[in-house]
Amino acid sequence: MSLIAKTPKPPYYAVIFTSVRTEGDNGYANMAKEMEVLAAKQGGFLGIESARDEELGITVSYWDSLEAIENWKSNASHKIAQKRGKGEWYQNYHVRITKVERDYFADMGV
Amino acid sequence: MSLIAKTPKPPYYAVIFTSVRTEGDNGYANMAKEMEVLAAKQGGFLGIESARDEELGITVSYWDSLEAIENWKSNASHKIAQKRGKGEWYQNYHVRITKVERDYFADMGV
Repeated sequence: MSLIAKTPKPPYYAVIFTSVRTEGDNGYANMAKEMEVLAAKQGGFLGIESARDEELGITVSYWDSLEAIENWKSNASHKIAQKRGKGEWYQNYHVRITKVERDYFADMGV
Repeated sequence: MSLIAKTPKPPYYAVIFTSVRTEGDNGYANMAKEMEVLAAKQGGFLGIESARDEELGITVSYWDSLEAIENWKSNASHKIAQKRGKGEWYQNYHVRITKVERDYFADMGV
């Protein structure tokens, strides 16, 4: 699920979630996977991309409207994950709600 | 340079660059670092965040205007890097130009 998302022609919306993890897994990997699966079932979901290295994690989820983002933010299971995130998994994070205005891509076919 | 960027109050702009690398380094790491340093010197640059794992890389750069993004895209040294990127470093990539409308963050101070 974590390759480049096939999104429609803009405009649409992107949520950029950047985070610095605490040490140890503490159930994080399982919950992260679960949340990706759950997000993909929400109305208005368009795709998700995720990368994490030793310093930083970036997850970008794509949505067809601000309403869809709001619904996902207030999803009950997601709220539980958010709470555990603040308490256990993240040292700090930043969430940015953005509108995708233009995009371009290249596939070198290698 | 690759921790969470300290950006101003929205609105501002974010460029989401998602890429799948080819095998081997081929000068990529050096050039990537050079481009981060060079981007930071451009007018309108606000910050940059980057994460890469075995599957995917995501770099998000933040800018105060679409004009600043356009200037960076057409910067001469950056254009050389873009060309090498297409030829050598990336299997495929996707660039999304977005307007950051809202943001929120948390620092758990751990």
